[in-house]
Amino acid sequence: MGLNDLGSYERRIAEETAMEPHVSPTAVHAPDVPPRLKATNYPEPFASRVAGREKRVLGDLFGLTNFGVNLTRLRPGAISALRHAHSKQDEFIYVLDGHPVLVTNLGETKLEPGMCAGFRAGTGDAHHLVNCSEEDVLYLEVGDRTAGDNAVYPDDDLRVMRGEDGKWSYTRKDGSAY
Amino acid sequence: MGLNDLGSYERRIAEETAMEPHVSPTAVHAPDVPPRLKATNYPEPFASRVAGREKRVLGDLFGLTNFGVNLTRLRPGAISALRHAHSKQDEFIYVLDGHPVLVTNLGETKLEPGMCAGFRAGTGDAHHLVNCSEEDVLYLEVGDRTAGDNAVYPDDDLRVMRGEDGKWSYTRKDGSAY
Repeated sequence: MGLNDLGSYERRIAEETAMEPHVSPTAVHAPDVPPRLKATNYPEPFASRVAGREKRVLGDLFGLTNFGVNLTRLRPGAISALRHAHSKQDEFIYVLDGHPVLVTNLGETKLEPGMCAGFRAGTGDAHHLVNCSEEDVLYLEVGDRTAGDNAVYPDDDLRVMRGEDGKWSYTRKDGSAY
Repeated sequence: MGLNDLGSYERRIAEETAMEPHVSPTAVHAPDVPPRLKATNYPEPFASRVAGREKRVLGDLFGLTNFGVNLTRLRPGAISALRHAHSKQDEFIYVLDGHPVLVTNLGETKLEPGMCAGFRAGTGDAHHLVNCSEEDVLYLEVGDRTAGDNAVYPDDDLRVMRGEDGKWSYTRKDGSAY
């Protein structure tokens, strides 16, 4: 669900403000966390397709490294990510507000608050959420950071691999650069 | 947050009903998932202390293996777990309803819906939630399943180690059995 491009919130804030990384808070009110400044790591023309998506990076706030957790808002018309399937990373979403449509290889499923879905690594079943409604969608997304992950995008000429440094590199399906 | 004793929901249901494991659903309404039948793996006298805690195992429903996600309800007076700190497992909680008190080495923090907290592995900062209110608390909890994990319980004569088979074994701090 676009956890591909989770960075270190604390490190980024520290770099931008030229301050030392701060100590992890005990707890935070999630909606008060500032949205991530970098909207996406997708190359164009894909980056523009996730306009209207806003992520609040929660897990990194507490120094978690084994998995990431985001609070993500989709404006009307926005999508969670390009439809994709991970090789190693399990993903999970829980809908807090609104009515997104979950698209998988099996088709469309309309979700509502209190519904959740999991996307097991390695199945090849590609997924994303689409907000076809007139109201915002708000959901939690979780994804682990297992090494050697990659993702395929059945609907787009894109693929991504995660390097040993944790950075994602996007290419066309033939391996050439964007 | 008591993810120590996450089992495989599908396998358990299948064993109990003598049916083959079912195919993962696309999505579920989380409150409709039956509560886990085994309340805890703690030995007595600790097991009785988590009475009033009810877990709905969500991640396993979808075949996720890298991390677990539960929807957990705490009745008035209930606790999430004995106060503990993991060596390898990161944990994260997000409060959906109610006002639990988060207890860490630093003291008490009152939480409310929309608040979240993360517990980074290896810090030694032990945590749990206590429902001191008159209303139920409902929260999501996430924990990864990194191999070689163990947990310490500063307030109790208990420790636990996770075996290579994924099972948890609880002993006294001197290693003797309960």
